[in-house]
Amino acid sequence: MERFRFICSRCGKSEPFSYKAVCDCGGTLLVDYDLELVSQTLFQNQLSLRSSTMWRYRELLPIQHQSSIVSLGEGWTPLLRMPTLEKELQLPALWIKREEQNPTGSFKARGFAAAVSIMNDFQLKKAAVPSNGNAASALSAYAARAGIEVVVIVPKDCPGIIVEECVRYGAKTFLTSGLIHDAGAILEQGKQRYGWVNVGTLKEPGRIEGKKTMGLELAEQLGWKLPDVIVYPTGGGSGIIGMWKAFNELIALGWICGPMPRIVSVQESGCDPIVQSIHQNDSRFIPAANTSSSPTGMRVPHPPDGDLLLSILRQTNGTAVTVTAQEIAVSQKRLGRCGISSSPEGAAALAGCIRLRDNGWIRDTDRVVVFNTSHADKYIHWAAPPEVPIVQDYHDFIAAYDG
Amino acid sequence: MERFRFICSRCGKSEPFSYKAVCDCGGTLLVDYDLELVSQTLFQNQLSLRSSTMWRYRELLPIQHQSSIVSLGEGWTPLLRMPTLEKELQLPALWIKREEQNPTGSFKARGFAAAVSIMNDFQLKKAAVPSNGNAASALSAYAARAGIEVVVIVPKDCPGIIVEECVRYGAKTFLTSGLIHDAGAILEQGKQRYGWVNVGTLKEPGRIEGKKTMGLELAEQLGWKLPDVIVYPTGGGSGIIGMWKAFNELIALGWICGPMPRIVSVQESGCDPIVQSIHQNDSRFIPAANTSSSPTGMRVPHPPDGDLLLSILRQTNGTAVTVTAQEIAVSQKRLGRCGISSSPEGAAALAGCIRLRDNGWIRDTDRVVVFNTSHADKYIHWAAPPEVPIVQDYHDFIAAYDG
Repeated sequence: MERFRFICSRCGKSEPFSYKAVCDCGGTLLVDYDLELVSQTLFQNQLSLRSSTMWRYRELLPIQHQSSIVSLGEGWTPLLRMPTLEKELQLPALWIKREEQNPTGSFKARGFAAAVSIMNDFQLKKAAVPSNGNAASALSAYAARAGIEVVVIVPKDCPGIIVEECVRYGAKTFLTSGLIHDAGAILEQGKQRYGWVNVGTLKEPGRIEGKKTMGLELAEQLGWKLPDVIVYPTGGGSGIIGMWKAFNELIALGWICGPMPRIVSVQESGCDPIVQSIHQNDSRFIPAANTSSSPTGMRVPHPPDGDLLLSILRQTNGTAVTVTAQEIAVSQKRLGRCGISSSPEGAAALAGCIRLRDNGWIRDTDRVVVFNTSHADKYIHWAAPPEVPIVQDYHDFIAAYDG
Repeated sequence: MERFRFICSRCGKSEPFSYKAVCDCGGTLLVDYDLELVSQTLFQNQLSLRSSTMWRYRELLPIQHQSSIVSLGEGWTPLLRMPTLEKELQLPALWIKREEQNPTGSFKARGFAAAVSIMNDFQLKKAAVPSNGNAASALSAYAARAGIEVVVIVPKDCPGIIVEECVRYGAKTFLTSGLIHDAGAILEQGKQRYGWVNVGTLKEPGRIEGKKTMGLELAEQLGWKLPDVIVYPTGGGSGIIGMWKAFNELIALGWICGPMPRIVSVQESGCDPIVQSIHQNDSRFIPAANTSSSPTGMRVPHPPDGDLLLSILRQTNGTAVTVTAQEIAVSQKRLGRCGISSSPEGAAALAGCIRLRDNGWIRDTDRVVVFNTSHADKYIHWAAPPEVPIVQDYHDFIAAYDG
């Protein structure tokens, strides 16, 4: 009996699980579990006996062999009530999900723990990722743990400390003068020549599933009662897709009841295609034409499946909101004064929450979860190590790589 | 009935618990629990139902009112097997305790969660700490959470990113041209004038108790079977005292059997008074006369109770070992290549482990735990923010603070 297969999020067609992420129709393939089978070994009331990592939900992760699992101690991060912010924002409950306490200091650990474990299942030995920084760092660490060779390309204004992390974990590290999708294009071109798999957002089946564990954890940590609103800083969108999928699976298992939390995407002005798109009547996503926002994980002008993102935000009665660099700086300071080290992305999420509270979209009675995705420290203005080559295009890349 | 009192580690005299840390005889006061009372509510087989923080052991922490507890999600950090290092060092088991996954990115979170909670119990509203960096950062965060005012002084070569953290958490932050004990002297002088309590190492009763939870966790995470060797980077020594105390309490509760793990202190050459002292026949500790080591948490020439440290290392058949800056750099790189971001202190611990394995002190059959206390990122060479004043002595300090 198959424990999981794929189902296409666009055409609904089912197919066996394999190392891919996109249906023939172009839709994103989602992992579809046989929940009856899952229920035979995964029991709600016995979860507390399991490991304090995301692998406590192993039946809901698409790894075929237990021995393939690569773990650095990811997941089961604290969900912290914020009494001061609750008072200031007049909310009955506000939690920060402290994703910076993951290995590699960011939420990206979850996706790559799953992605690298799946690579082991398929005996794949070489990975590449285009990234705004933290994904590259996380892949580098998990690949190091697994003995997988790794190549990462990040924009040349990526926070230098994160570039140092990639180098420290032993990745072949490159900067590009373009944006994340330009890095992605270079790596796609190199697949044949170099034999790597591209583990970029929605390029393989693991990262959504790993991110899904954030949703599973939220439910468990809140005693299987979901919050009213989730505020999440958004780039490629795999976190949103993952959490939405988590809640659907938990509803199907009968572990939680609806309604879904209203999911909010937060982006920075200068690159907010999700916000621009959601305020159009058209259901189709429109990528950002120009990009002028800061170099953070939110700077993704062309998310791979914007349509799916939009449909999730709409289905959950959620929304998307833009915040300015100034609002991010103020929120980062505010979180600091509450004892929380927050990345600009985490601070943006709080800023988005404040905006929506101010305009009444978040209501007096709403119980709200805000995601802090990484540490403040990583974003100090530090130059990338000088030995990391800058590549403009694939031609440059070959010269630098083969060098 | 009293849940806990003090017992002096030197003269053995018992006295009621209060806000102090030193006996009239000069010995360190340790918290002594009524273990019969503890056993009435703390059950070994029900711990898994408790929170995934150090507060799962709340009966073994000296907090009088539950409402005093200040938590940012500290403790219950991963204990990670290191298969590659096991093979290279030919050891049956080697674990890294990933203390960098604590809030504020270091093991210091535990001590200050306890210390600030105790301050709440005693309604103390102003704290000060002399520190090599991470203690100042952790106090700043917990004090921010608790609404306690805080002053920190660190040596002027303290890693600048850690200084940034203190400022971010809202601490009044100062640099000194001296070492940690010089910072301590300034803060002791200011107690009366400014009305703060000094929460420096062994100046109050909480920090040892908070650090103790590292030992409790090790035991629980290893299924109540202790490792043979614990390798720990050592500065002031509260972690060593705490873990040794943890194991004694667990033995007294009947939860584990002896023998104690052999505890190893690791220091850097240029400031290794514990190592120098343990190799003397005399039982008295000798502080370091000159200090030339790197600015890390291990650079503590005058630990407050070196005699107690020595006696613990000897009682457990442990030892102390010096490593060079070069060995630390090599180990940091080695850990990076295993996917672990390690502070110089954590890398020193691995370097110490390697030395003792090479010389046979760590045996073929030993199961070893190495502590990684913080993230590598924090130690990048970054200048402290220019607005943080440098003070040479108490006179300077007054001018800078009041000015």
